[in-house]
Amino acid sequence: MATQTLDPATAQETPEALVARMAAAGRAAQRQLALLSDADKAAALRAAAQALRADEAEILAANARDLAAGEANGLTKAMLDRLKLDAGRLAGIADAVDQVASLADPVGEVIDRAERPNGLVLTRVRVPIGLIGIIYESRPNVTADAAALGFRSGNAVLLRGGSEAVHSNQAILAALSRGLASVGAPVDAIQLVPTQDRAVVGAMLTAAGLIDMIVPRGGKSLVARVQADARVPVLAHLDGICHTYVHVAADREMAKAVTLNAKMRRTGICGAMETLLLDARFPHNAEVVASLIEAGCELRGDARARALDPRIQPASDEDWDTEYLDAILSVAVVDGLDAALDHVARHSSNHTDAIVTGDDAAATRFLNQVDSAIVMVNASSQFADGGEFGLGAEIGIATGRLHARGPVALEGLTTYKWVVRGTGQTRP
Amino acid sequence: MATQTLDPATAQETPEALVARMAAAGRAAQRQLALLSDADKAAALRAAAQALRADEAEILAANARDLAAGEANGLTKAMLDRLKLDAGRLAGIADAVDQVASLADPVGEVIDRAERPNGLVLTRVRVPIGLIGIIYESRPNVTADAAALGFRSGNAVLLRGGSEAVHSNQAILAALSRGLASVGAPVDAIQLVPTQDRAVVGAMLTAAGLIDMIVPRGGKSLVARVQADARVPVLAHLDGICHTYVHVAADREMAKAVTLNAKMRRTGICGAMETLLLDARFPHNAEVVASLIEAGCELRGDARARALDPRIQPASDEDWDTEYLDAILSVAVVDGLDAALDHVARHSSNHTDAIVTGDDAAATRFLNQVDSAIVMVNASSQFADGGEFGLGAEIGIATGRLHARGPVALEGLTTYKWVVRGTGQTRP
Repeated sequence: MATQTLDPATAQETPEALVARMAAAGRAAQRQLALLSDADKAAALRAAAQALRADEAEILAANARDLAAGEANGLTKAMLDRLKLDAGRLAGIADAVDQVASLADPVGEVIDRAERPNGLVLTRVRVPIGLIGIIYESRPNVTADAAALGFRSGNAVLLRGGSEAVHSNQAILAALSRGLASVGAPVDAIQLVPTQDRAVVGAMLTAAGLIDMIVPRGGKSLVARVQADARVPVLAHLDGICHTYVHVAADREMAKAVTLNAKMRRTGICGAMETLLLDARFPHNAEVVASLIEAGCELRGDARARALDPRIQPASDEDWDTEYLDAILSVAVVDGLDAALDHVARHSSNHTDAIVTGDDAAATRFLNQVDSAIVMVNASSQFADGGEFGLGAEIGIATGRLHARGPVALEGLTTYKWVVRGTGQTRP
Repeated sequence: MATQTLDPATAQETPEALVARMAAAGRAAQRQLALLSDADKAAALRAAAQALRADEAEILAANARDLAAGEANGLTKAMLDRLKLDAGRLAGIADAVDQVASLADPVGEVIDRAERPNGLVLTRVRVPIGLIGIIYESRPNVTADAAALGFRSGNAVLLRGGSEAVHSNQAILAALSRGLASVGAPVDAIQLVPTQDRAVVGAMLTAAGLIDMIVPRGGKSLVARVQADARVPVLAHLDGICHTYVHVAADREMAKAVTLNAKMRRTGICGAMETLLLDARFPHNAEVVASLIEAGCELRGDARARALDPRIQPASDEDWDTEYLDAILSVAVVDGLDAALDHVARHSSNHTDAIVTGDDAAATRFLNQVDSAIVMVNASSQFADGGEFGLGAEIGIATGRLHARGPVALEGLTTYKWVVRGTGQTRP
């Protein structure tokens, strides 16, 4: 692929020129992509999934090179695990591409329609955003996932993966490209930006007018850097400091089950609970904290929480603003709903916050007044996920306030245009 | 109003501290505003409209001070006209606030609802964006219009008007505030940022996390500065280089009427046609250009256009990218739909582009392939307006691709949250 490696003719290209060249190719491919039917787009993705399966040997060999280099470079075990592919994981990646192919195409959907008194007929119609930049770290599956979601919704993508996964990503991209080419779909709709020069990331972030949106996928430092430097709109969440508030009217068993699941099912995901707020009048607080501790969670609490169980460590001020992504939880005892709302307003990262209660009025106030992308009653915050929401897949979860919030899937990769049909109307 | 002028205690405040303080007050007011019912918000705006009428003498006196200062400072006639209020214009401003009060409240609308197989019920519910900064120039009506639209959709606004309108804006703000206060609505939901220090604009533009969105209202240099410097999302259009393409299958009279209206009804609005594309095979091109010239329009054309009429001046390369906002029009003769699409793709500012044709297939291709916020068939581009679209009013027209496109009204001032209702579900 000419787009994967700098060839001699372009070796002196600046990062800005490289991004401009690839963006132009991507935009041209996007215009071709816009002419494909829904069925054509789905067929192209199925061909891409099939090519991933056919290239298993090449992709796993490329991945082995990355793993060897990663070990030599001292990557942590966790990083190596994120990087590692095997036959099962690769099959999962191909299946995910097939799944995206089977999702409904949002492009062309008529959002609303109005006929004006003068006879003009107005419709708002969903259209692709255009060219989307995805900046991610070591997981090679993002290459296929993001490419598939972008393509399904009629967008071209510029993928910039981590340098530690360069061979894996190139092999995956080669398979995807061959799949698209086999059905005549525009291959430049999915391009991989070279990783040799780290300045390319900066050039992508400032390519306003060339790239329409950037989606960072990775750890907090990557997202923070993207948010700080981008001149292109960014869809992201910096962290998920998710709260669960156990209200006085909570059911005892539900409170235990929901909080345990919200924290301990998987501790490393952004929807995991990081702070537990216990209503001072709830009679079963000690049981709730005991069940978490006995499941292996370290609890850090304020003075009133610590009075519930001697195994709770003291929390520092910092704990209330910390996303542990680990089996650690901060716990505060609060005096009722207003105090809980106040704590959430001060410390939430506006990702997902939940209440456990049997009191409808309390639930409604919590749902209305908590200003987060996702608010829940009587459910584990670990449901904060595009798949669980029935969106089929997600490109990420956004905690900003514009465009799309919460899990972002195909619809979030579209915008709309106004289509006005007249019969010669002029404005008086 | 404490928020209008720097009092001695805060005279040493930095622009950043000033914006942070006003943003905090605005956000607190927005939380109060969020608790008001639809009827309460409408009543507060009606009281504000009534206060504008009651304060006619004060507002016109303040405006007279601004006009006198403007004349002394050598403002142009056009600027003085934009600045000037009289009893009729002020009544129009008050009526517009009443009209916004009567619009349907988008907040609380359920966008969609789904029940998952596990029993979780998901709804997406419209909520206000939060705190919106409006940066505008000399027109004092923007103070009331933007405040009303923001308030109606549950948002707080930070208004930063031009220094030449400072007294007019303060008088209007005082009336609006008194109206809100008379019904117990949070007055800090509408604040006017002092104009003494121009650095305050920069502080607003970089107040990410404090201000949720900036809407610039004014000339191209203001919008360009806001787009270049903002770290807060911006909703805007830089210019409106709107095309009308007269296709070979256009109706002769319709082509003349639509192009004449698109250019000459009002030449200074962003939806005015700036470039006319004539299909080489359309037999009535000479009549179309003659009707424009005879209406007083200066035409600048390519060689083939000039062959249609000796009164057409030669166009320079620059003309194809120029928004005249005047009785001037660039004209090119193109070889069919593909050449027209190509010209539009290269030169449109993605605001509004139109085709005149009786051929449905050509219309459909144009509507699908032109990538602008508004695309039209057989209608004057001057309809590109929130009022004409039935939105009641508009805060502006956006040509970006994210969040809202085209005329932006109340819905564009909202976002959504995901509300998840469970019965104790945990994720497997």
